[in-house]
This record gives sequence, C-alpha cells and structure tokens, in this order.
Amino acid sequence: MTQPVHIEFPGRILLVGFGSIGQGVLPLILRHIGISADRIAIVSADDAGREEAARYQVKFLREPLTRENFRRTLEPFLGRGDLLINVSVDVSSVALIRHCWEKGAMYLDTCIEPWPGGYTDPTIPAARRTNYALREEALALRAGNARAPTAVVTHGANPGLVSHLVKVGLLNIAQDTGLLAAGAAAGGATTAGGAATAGAAAASGTGTRGDAPATGTAAGGRATGTAAGGAGRAGVVAVPKSRSDWAELAQRLGVKVIHIAERDTQVSTIAKEPNEFVNTWSVDGFVAEGSQPAELGWGSHERTFPRDGRRHDFGSGAAIYLSQPGVATRARSWTPLNGPYHGFLITHAEAISIADYYTLRKDTQVLYRPTVHYAYHPCDAAVLSLHEFCGRNYQLQSRKRILMDDISKGIDELGVLLAGHRRNAYWYGSQLSIEEARSLAPYNNATSLQVAVAVIAGVVWAMENPNCGLVEPDEMDFRRCLDMCLPYLGPVAGQYSDWTPLTDRERLFPEDLDKSDPWQFRNVRVS
Amino acid sequence: MTQPVHIEFPGRILLVGFGSIGQGVLPLILRHIGISADRIAIVSADDAGREEAARYQVKFLREPLTRENFRRTLEPFLGRGDLLINVSVDVSSVALIRHCWEKGAMYLDTCIEPWPGGYTDPTIPAARRTNYALREEALALRAGNARAPTAVVTHGANPGLVSHLVKVGLLNIAQDTGLLAAGAAAGGATTAGGAATAGAAAASGTGTRGDAPATGTAAGGRATGTAAGGAGRAGVVAVPKSRSDWAELAQRLGVKVIHIAERDTQVSTIAKEPNEFVNTWSVDGFVAEGSQPAELGWGSHERTFPRDGRRHDFGSGAAIYLSQPGVATRARSWTPLNGPYHGFLITHAEAISIADYYTLRKDTQVLYRPTVHYAYHPCDAAVLSLHEFCGRNYQLQSRKRILMDDISKGIDELGVLLAGHRRNAYWYGSQLSIEEARSLAPYNNATSLQVAVAVIAGVVWAMENPNCGLVEPDEMDFRRCLDMCLPYLGPVAGQYSDWTPLTDRERLFPEDLDKSDPWQFRNVRVS
Repeated sequence: MTQPVHIEFPGRILLVGFGSIGQGVLPLILRHIGISADRIAIVSADDAGREEAARYQVKFLREPLTRENFRRTLEPFLGRGDLLINVSVDVSSVALIRHCWEKGAMYLDTCIEPWPGGYTDPTIPAARRTNYALREEALALRAGNARAPTAVVTHGANPGLVSHLVKVGLLNIAQDTGLLAAGAAAGGATTAGGAATAGAAAASGTGTRGDAPATGTAAGGRATGTAAGGAGRAGVVAVPKSRSDWAELAQRLGVKVIHIAERDTQVSTIAKEPNEFVNTWSVDGFVAEGSQPAELGWGSHERTFPRDGRRHDFGSGAAIYLSQPGVATRARSWTPLNGPYHGFLITHAEAISIADYYTLRKDTQVLYRPTVHYAYHPCDAAVLSLHEFCGRNYQLQSRKRILMDDISKGIDELGVLLAGHRRNAYWYGSQLSIEEARSLAPYNNATSLQVAVAVIAGVVWAMENPNCGLVEPDEMDFRRCLDMCLPYLGPVAGQYSDWTPLTDRERLFPEDLDKSDPWQFRNVRVS
Repeated sequence: MTQPVHIEFPGRILLVGFGSIGQGVLPLILRHIGISADRIAIVSADDAGREEAARYQVKFLREPLTRENFRRTLEPFLGRGDLLINVSVDVSSVALIRHCWEKGAMYLDTCIEPWPGGYTDPTIPAARRTNYALREEALALRAGNARAPTAVVTHGANPGLVSHLVKVGLLNIAQDTGLLAAGAAAGGATTAGGAATAGAAAASGTGTRGDAPATGTAAGGRATGTAAGGAGRAGVVAVPKSRSDWAELAQRLGVKVIHIAERDTQVSTIAKEPNEFVNTWSVDGFVAEGSQPAELGWGSHERTFPRDGRRHDFGSGAAIYLSQPGVATRARSWTPLNGPYHGFLITHAEAISIADYYTLRKDTQVLYRPTVHYAYHPCDAAVLSLHEFCGRNYQLQSRKRILMDDISKGIDELGVLLAGHRRNAYWYGSQLSIEEARSLAPYNNATSLQVAVAVIAGVVWAMENPNCGLVEPDEMDFRRCLDMCLPYLGPVAGQYSDWTPLTDRERLFPEDLDKSDPWQFRNVRVS
C-alpha cells in the first residue's frame, strides 16, 4: 500500500479525547497529513493511550473537559488555522465548534456530543435527548457563519463514511438498472462492469480498490451478486450534481429504505464476564447512544406510524423517534457475509441527515424520503453486554473492556443496504477483517480503523476546504473522501439480494405484517 | 461424599437417547442403583457417547426411533419389571408410556416429547404445539391405569426438581413469616433457624446440605437474605399433606408468582462461531421447546390479559400461551448471584403442572392460582445462539455444539423465585459450579448434573413406588427426592430480595406498567 501524504498542514491539531478512536487516528494523522508530532496535542479525560502518545512524542494532557474549564484548558492548544478533532464523549460539540470559530480554528467530530446527561438525563424530555435535537442545535450555528472555518460534524464510519457509500450505491444501482450510462458514474477513473464491482463510482486515485471484484459471498443462499450491467447502456439520467439531483435519483430508483447494515464478528479469546460491558469501541459512547431514544428517518412510503413513535415539533421533520432506547429496539436487516439478522436500531446522526438530504418537497409537502436507520449487530460480546444492560434496567455494568489486542478473528462488515428498488436490495460497504486492519495500521481493530480513516478523510477535506462553515457528510465530496478511505476498508463489496423483511416470516406463528410492501418499517421492526 | 446405593433393582434399565443428559445419567445409575452394567442398554439416534457406553460396558444400539420401528426396536430390551428412561428428543412420551405399560415396565422422562414436528409443524395449530396440550394428552392416559407401572413424566431439573424446591420455599417462607412453627417443616431432621439456611424443610438423610448457611451473595445491592426466623413461633398452620393443603398454604402466604429463575454463567474457552448454536445441554431439545409457543400458568391475581395471549378450550385451564415462540419472549426475573436479568420465557411442563397443582377452586371458579413460568438465562453462548436463531427467522444454524470439557468456569444458578408475599420475593435453589460438578460426577457439566441427579431421584422413587400409574413431580415425595438430589446441587441457597419487576423501571422512558401490583405479568414481560 502506498501511504500518500494527502496535504501539508502548517497549523496545529488538537485531539480532544483519546479512547479507541483517538488512539487509532493518531498514527494515521502522522502518516497522511504533513505535520510534525510537536504540533499535535491530546487532551483526554483519562490516561488511556498515554503510552502511545509518548511513543509518538505527542503532548498529552489529562483533563476532563467541562462547561466551566474547557475554554481555559484548550487555550494553549488552539488558534487561527489550527484544527480540533473531537473524539471524546460528554464534551459538547456545539460548545467546541463555537469556541473553534472564535479562535479561527477548524473542527471535526464523529458524533454531535452534548455535555453529560444530554443523552440520558430523565429530566430532559425524550424529544430533546435525540440526535435530531442535537443536529438541529448544530445546524442553527450556520446562521451568519457560512464562511466560518470548516466544522465537519459526524464524520466517522457511521455517521460519515456511510453517506458516501450511499451515493456509490445509488450510482451502481442506476447503472445496473440502465438509468445511468455504464461508466458514467466513474468520475474520470476506470470502472469495471456493473455494481457488483467495488466502488464503481468511487474508483479514482491511488490505492483504491475500485477495480477489485466483489468479494461478498452469498449468505443463506439468498445473495444474488452479479456483475451484470444494466440493459439500457445509453442512460437516461446524468450523474447528480446537487442535493436535489441526488434525491431525485433515489426517488427515481424507487429506494424506500436505507439501512446502515453492520455485522461485527470480531471475537476475543477472553470471554465476557458477568457485570462487564465489552465492545470493539468506546463502551461509554455506545451505551450513551444506545440509551437515547431509537430514531429513524421516516420515509414517505411508510403507511403505519409506530404505536410508540413521536414526531418533532421543530426542525426538518425528517426523522421520528420511538419511546424506548435503541438498545431495546431491534430491526431486521441483511449483509452479504452474514445473511439476515436482527440488529439494534441505535440512533445515529446519519439516520437523520441522510433522510433529510434525500427529501424531495413540493412547497411544504414531502414528495419523497427514504426511511433511514442503523441496524447494528455489534460484536457478540457487545450483544451479550446489551442483553445484560437491559436486564439491569439500563444501569451500566461495573466493568468495561474494549477488545483490541486480544481479538482472535472476525470482520466488521459495515455498509449500506439500499432497498425497495427494481433490483430489490443492494448492499455496499466494507468487509474489513481484524487481520487486515492490523496489517494496515497500528493501534486499531477493524471497527476503529473504519472510523479512524474516515476521520482522516474528513480532516483532509476540511483542510482542503477550510472556509465552509458547518458541514455534514452528505455535503462533502464523496469521491475525494472515499478515495482516501478505500485503502483501509478491506474488501469493498457490492451485492444484490432478494432478501426482504418478509422472507421466511410467519413460519411458526401469524405476525403483524404489511404484505403489500416488504419495506414497511412495520415489517422491519422486531421489538 | 458418601455414595449410597439407594435401591437394589433386579430389572433392566433402558436408556432411550444418549445425549448430554443420558451421558450424565449413566454413571449415576451405576453409582446409586443396585444394577449391573449388563442389565443396562442404550438406544440412541446417533453415535454420541458410544465411547462412554463402551467404557462402562453398556450395550449401545444406534437406531433412531420412529412411530413405525419403536416397538420392534425396543423389543429385546423391555419386559415386566424393567424401566425405561426417555431422555431423547423426537420420541413420543405417550407412545413409550403406552408401550411400557403393555410390557409391564416403568417409565421416566424429563419432558413430554411428541414425535417429530409436534413442536414446530406449522400445519398443527399453535394451541396443539404447546406443553399444555402434550400434558393433557399424557394425563388422559390415567383413565383406567391408576395402578399401572409407575410412569414419571417431566422429572429432570426443570421440570422436576423445581417442583420440590417450590415446596421447600413455601415452607421456609411460612416459617419466616410465623405462619408455620419454626422447625415444623423439618420432617424429622434437624433444621437451622429460618429460610436463609438451605433446605430447612428438606434436610434429612445422608449427604444433604440442610444445615449449610446460605451462600448466595447479594447482587445489585438488593438481596436481603437473612437468617431471621418468623415472629410467631407457635405457628398457625400445619405442614401440608395434600394438594389442596399446599395450594392453601401458597394462597395464605400470598404467593402471586413462581418463576423458575435460572442464570447459567458457564463459559467456554472456544467462542461461538457464526452459524453455530452453542448450549450447555441439548441444542435440539432447547431449540424445540424454544420454538413452541411461550406458555405460562395464569395466576388468579392477573388483571391484564396479554394482547397475544390465548386460552385453551380443553383441559385444566391452568395455563395460557402467547402467539410467539419462547425464544422471542423475554421476562424479568432475579437470582441471588446475578441480580435482576431478562430471561427467556421458554415453555416448560412445570409452568403448567405447578400452576395446576396450586389451583384452588370453588366449584368451577378459580379462587387462587399463582402465575408460573420459566425465566431462563442460558449460558452466554446460548443467548448469542438464540439471537442469531431469531435473526434467521427460527431456521436452525448449520452447526451445533454442546459445551462440556471446554468449559472454563461458571455456575448454573437454578431455583424458584416465589414472590408477592409478605417478604416480597424468595429465591431457593442450586448454585452449582462447573468445578464442583466435575468433582461430583464424570461426563457432566453443572447443567446436566442438575438434570441427571433429578433423573436418578425420579427413577429411585419410581422403583420404590412401582404401581402409581402416571405421576407428575408435584405428586411425588419431595423430601425423598430432594434428599437424593442435594449432594449434587452444590450450594443450595435461600434468599429474600426486595427486587420487583418495577424496580428501576421508567428511568429513561415511560413504560406500560401496572404500578398498583408489581407482580402483574404485564410488568414482568419484556417482549
């Protein structure tokens, strides 16, 4: 693998938070950004990763940030032209963005974080503990700040990378159904024939896998990955250039549902203990988002509003929430290697931003919007941890552990499932194994590396576009970002499937189904 | 440990099935029953355990039994005065009992089994795929067979042993609340003071742990195990002698709910693979019962009938079923070592037979009945296996594995939680560790040993009472049975708790609760 320095950066970089993601990001900063270690600093709430920082000769300050101390604490590290990477939990994104802008610094996070309690303080109404509310609060920063230093919000693997995968997926389906001329989506690079090849639309630049064949193998005998191109080679639409172009393409294809469909099969040699929460990334981060209300972008094709669903009386209206936490909410989805599975409908920024981005309106009426949500099957130890956490009525276990060096095998299969169109369902994403992740970068597992490389791509994009104000992933150059990510994503596979949420249902008992449309959320939801 | 021969048996013993339970039972037969190996035979559907049989010089015939071949196949092994132990799956209990009676042989099983499909054939109505229906079919054998050779149905750990634990639990609560004179329940043996001691009512005979202190440690800070005896030492009731006595005692104590509350923490050094079902006992047996409708004895205190609940139009009326499988049904319960947890509401014979046994009627009107069900937290690998199984819409994984020699640690904490009375909740049961199980008997783990010793107790009881016709555990001598089991159950603990299904609820979201009575099934049910 070539290891290009994507950009020379004369400023300083401040990492806020140095958990599993921060630790994974640091070596990639030093590899891909032209910056010396003495211009990088870390401020973290605990001592995790201190040895790694020392190894790279990067300043490390242990100081939990609070509403009261964060300005004073960050003072020595941040000025005009610098960049802050927020990979903490419990440090407000909005507060940091404001602060960065005051200082003339750029910003990136992987999640719009509130101050402590923002996710789980029961005195805050559930509607305000949502990512929807946090996003609206962040978007409100835009007023009068259109040319402020670029602040990229929610640009990790998901949210982040997956927004770019959605665009490639749409272009691939468009090609395979003859809507788009074969090769039209290539963006100047060579493409192989059809959607079953990886990154047909994204392939360009060094080190991409755009011409690699699909590696997803059929799971459950239902996958139908083929390399067949579409019939109408001439094409009837152009590659989208604007937000409305993209939404129109999705509408035209008939995409009803976008799942962030992830199955992490990484396992450790050390079994989970009772009263222990084990995960492949931040336990605190996962528990926090899992305790928020389950949220989903609410599609225009939906006919049955959930009994416990709630709409917001402010903001875009793109998403709804359920009156229960994501850890208690399961949804049916599908990945190529795993086949059908039950994932957790954990709220995530992309469920809202993607749904909003692909909304078509006539005046105030919504003409089209896909239903968008996460369907996360974390590593097995985390599934057990969630089961125990729910049994404890959402009181966190006493011990926490992040799987890293003790992982014995497994793959984080992370992609987007675009469904409801002529070819039924199409999954496009990364199938990164722990072995490959280890060969690609130190201080990472498969999960953290998918996030870390997306952070790098977002940071580089911000440096290349330094005065865009607040930016969401869907608004960025998906080709540029993907080009930087692809070398780190392992096999990137596109695969069609004839699986639907109605497949094999009612084998033993009658169920509450809408058989007239497989892709109704009513059919997707488990609990 | 002394290893008494409980009875000399001149007949032959035939084991039908030789999976994890059969393999665990065989060494205990040879240890505790006066029988030579040449009078024992095994008929099994596969070759599992063939080496063990050879080691003990026991005949082993591989021959899957069917409706068509079972009479012919069993012909050489069964005659007057013999005993058949059915620990198979997919071999009809009713057919075998009839056959045993024709031959003049006794019978015992741990589950009323149907022929293949009886649990999961979707062409059979759900009401007929229940244990309720299977039990009614077995009970119907009684007509005209009151003095037939004893046929003990459903006498493993649960169903089986737990029926005896319920009786001890009731007596202990009665003593601790002053309803029963202290020591009145001892049955001739010495008792220590109060319910927090193990087996106050059951302690007698060799090798029991009746005088051992409770070993359950408080989990989650909510357990309140004390050795405090009741106030009114004089006692106001006598030790029950009949079924109606027992039901009246339960009613008088105010027991609303009886959970079979089990948490198996046994873990293996070998992680579960994708597409693999892992368990500490028969995978086929667990998947079969887990695919049946969830069933529970339906208590007279229940105010809200489940939206998907169904009553039967035949039989005792003691139980209802839900229109979903047990593997998809979770319930809240509590054990001393584990604290609160979500268990699977898997249907089991004891949920129906205990509810029926403790029903008080005036004419046709039900005056009292507890709600009774299983709340099973199997070993972690099995929880993952169930999650995957559900995600596959109840299509069994390709590979199966039973944890045995590779178990690295863990405890099968199996007991009964009697709740709703003056002292709130009382758990009484076995906390058998894998280490202790291994020290007690070969070819066992903690789970199989709890079953195997109950099989032995049931077999000995049948031999001692050879002409009782069809018998359920609740009708047997609980003291005699427990005395035989206790040496194999590890620490046997009784512990009070102030936990209820309302504890810590609504921390993050409003929930559908009946706050006027914690022990409503509406509060207990999770999914």
